[in-house]
Amino acid sequence: MTDQVQATIITIGDELLIGQVIDTNSAFIAQQFNAIGVNVHQRIAVGDDARSIQDALDTAIEKSQVVIITGGLGPTADDITKPLLNQYFGGTMVVDQPTLDHITYIFEQVHKRPMIERNRKQAEVPDVCEVLFNQTGTAPGMLFTKNNTLIFSLPGVPHEMQWLTVEKVIPVIQAKLKLGVIAHRTLLTAGVGESFLAELIQQFESSLPETIKLAYLPSYGMVRLRLTGKGDQASELNKTLDNYFTKLKLEVKDYLVTDKDEPIEMVVGGLLKSNNKTVATAESCTGGYIGHLLSKHAGSSSFFTGSVVSYDNRIKTEFLDVPTSILQSVGAVSKEAVEQMAVAIRTKMKTDFGISVSGIMGPSGKTDEKPLGMVWIGVSNHEKVVSKVFYLRFDRQKNIEVTAIQAINLLRLLIINKI
Amino acid sequence: MTDQVQATIITIGDELLIGQVIDTNSAFIAQQFNAIGVNVHQRIAVGDDARSIQDALDTAIEKSQVVIITGGLGPTADDITKPLLNQYFGGTMVVDQPTLDHITYIFEQVHKRPMIERNRKQAEVPDVCEVLFNQTGTAPGMLFTKNNTLIFSLPGVPHEMQWLTVEKVIPVIQAKLKLGVIAHRTLLTAGVGESFLAELIQQFESSLPETIKLAYLPSYGMVRLRLTGKGDQASELNKTLDNYFTKLKLEVKDYLVTDKDEPIEMVVGGLLKSNNKTVATAESCTGGYIGHLLSKHAGSSSFFTGSVVSYDNRIKTEFLDVPTSILQSVGAVSKEAVEQMAVAIRTKMKTDFGISVSGIMGPSGKTDEKPLGMVWIGVSNHEKVVSKVFYLRFDRQKNIEVTAIQAINLLRLLIINKI
Repeated sequence: MTDQVQATIITIGDELLIGQVIDTNSAFIAQQFNAIGVNVHQRIAVGDDARSIQDALDTAIEKSQVVIITGGLGPTADDITKPLLNQYFGGTMVVDQPTLDHITYIFEQVHKRPMIERNRKQAEVPDVCEVLFNQTGTAPGMLFTKNNTLIFSLPGVPHEMQWLTVEKVIPVIQAKLKLGVIAHRTLLTAGVGESFLAELIQQFESSLPETIKLAYLPSYGMVRLRLTGKGDQASELNKTLDNYFTKLKLEVKDYLVTDKDEPIEMVVGGLLKSNNKTVATAESCTGGYIGHLLSKHAGSSSFFTGSVVSYDNRIKTEFLDVPTSILQSVGAVSKEAVEQMAVAIRTKMKTDFGISVSGIMGPSGKTDEKPLGMVWIGVSNHEKVVSKVFYLRFDRQKNIEVTAIQAINLLRLLIINKI
Repeated sequence: MTDQVQATIITIGDELLIGQVIDTNSAFIAQQFNAIGVNVHQRIAVGDDARSIQDALDTAIEKSQVVIITGGLGPTADDITKPLLNQYFGGTMVVDQPTLDHITYIFEQVHKRPMIERNRKQAEVPDVCEVLFNQTGTAPGMLFTKNNTLIFSLPGVPHEMQWLTVEKVIPVIQAKLKLGVIAHRTLLTAGVGESFLAELIQQFESSLPETIKLAYLPSYGMVRLRLTGKGDQASELNKTLDNYFTKLKLEVKDYLVTDKDEPIEMVVGGLLKSNNKTVATAESCTGGYIGHLLSKHAGSSSFFTGSVVSYDNRIKTEFLDVPTSILQSVGAVSKEAVEQMAVAIRTKMKTDFGISVSGIMGPSGKTDEKPLGMVWIGVSNHEKVVSKVFYLRFDRQKNIEVTAIQAINLLRLLIINKI
């Protein structure tokens, strides 16, 4: 088998090391690299510190044929990457005319304000690099070469980094290196724990050849399973992977939600779309998050009608006809309340399905009878309303997310007639 | 100055390297370490691969006094960390009785299902480690020592990792190492670009002593500024930092949103709470995301009343009284529509303030007059309604987030009488 091309991602910025910012750039780059058969074997995050950046470069270049650096290229004094790369690769700073023209255009035509010296400086690049023209911003990408390793430096602004990766980095890698193939198959299960699942597919797992790995990815009370195969030839690898994936799907068929790498709200959106059905949500403790999940992907307007977020109990009564007698006797976090909400939102918004939630997300709000994390979820169609209670054990933010995911899963079960 | 204690965070898991999962654990650990004066100088992410994990450990131990490893400790076969650490540190696997008792308790009393062999295995630990008892799950934490470096291994499940970090790791570090002090001051600006800001505070920046660094953190059309100081003595460092921070606040006073490290929805939540005011939202293109932001933090029920998500235009008319004549003449993405929505939601939910948004988030939906990313935002109080149009240039997901942030900022300006 051809040796896989190995890549290291280096992200630069103190904000990553003090935990102020979560690194999403690395995930994007890794996905893109995987798709063309480049294996990311390491990711390193370092601060805005010359010594640390140099050390990371030394390590990365020694062990990788591709190194990609993001961050540290902005117009301010804390961005030290460019002069450092210039020194590291032994260059001299020169003005890149196309970049200067582009920056001038952006300031004069788009921002319509005068360009200042620190903007002009963004057009300077080391003369030892190949400039990767950045159509989406003022900081150009750069390509250096050392010991047969390709080293790319990109700005850290996500949409600029994304554009440069797709339009410039990937084509260069494909042109210059002989690439292997990496492929994945991912499925999602619900209603079964990680240990039980591992027990169930133990034999399958031990039957896998060395070139295929199985991974368990539990999250939000569901478990995703991923097969990863590496090889030389796409057609052969895909055939082998498909074979094993078919077997795996059969093993877990009782818990299978989807055999694609897609979030559950896309599964449910797809079910609604293909059946020409619509849904509306009545949310209390999730504050609008279920509506957000249902509408965040393109094409959602064909099945998502809208929501009433009844955060205040008064709104439950005035907008969703929950009788004050229910609120006073059993309370807003109750089977009675969510069932009324699920029916009302469906009727009032004239949809095929309704979702409702009401719970105690924490850190405060619990009572003697109702612990933190207790949440009632209801779903309805024109024939019936079904509700279920959950007891979650996470922090407020995670409780909100798990509630939303479980509510969407309950709707899935209603759509496919499993409840 | 005392040398700072340097730490490396190692995260293990193929899912981090193929971009399937975004690493949030590192940010949590980094924040906790910073708060006690431990400087995270490097983060390394590697796959479930023995050689890569060993290499990362070698590098980390050589350069750090504290190494913290997360992930790879689950009950399934793709979790290879524990046997590998056992071998790396030259130990023998033994059963840890308190952990076994705890696992047995969890299965018998909590899950109420039989414990299987792979669960029992989670109680095995290398005899060369100090066990960090994990009250929140089945995988224990472990502490190894090599060349005076403390190496902690924690499970990757976020709430378990968090509990172990706070309850076990931090106390051990504080007991065993002499720590320096790291402190931060962060403020948020709105309505000014990064370059202009850098120009504005150029003199201030060059007046900073070597022990204090300034960083620019642009996001969602706003810029956060952070001062980071390192020293021996907390009182002295905090005094110096406070002095410079006061100067910095004065320099940017025209754009200052908050002088705390908090998101804008908390700033606005605080303003509403302290004035005993309430808000409701009428959302189209954001699908509930503004309501989610306003309600995601504890204590939001005192100011957030609810939302109507009118994703379908029919809901704009039926729930928010937007006349069909407006929808037919100028359309849903218009000044007229959002102003009516902002007024209606405030009136119908009987709140002090209303927020409304309607826009084209992409990738489809644009017309000749209305480009992708065009969004109208409206805010209202009992005296007036103010609206503003934005032209965003991001992908769908980012457009939704920026719209929500800008809507909340517009409400802030209305609350403080700046519009």
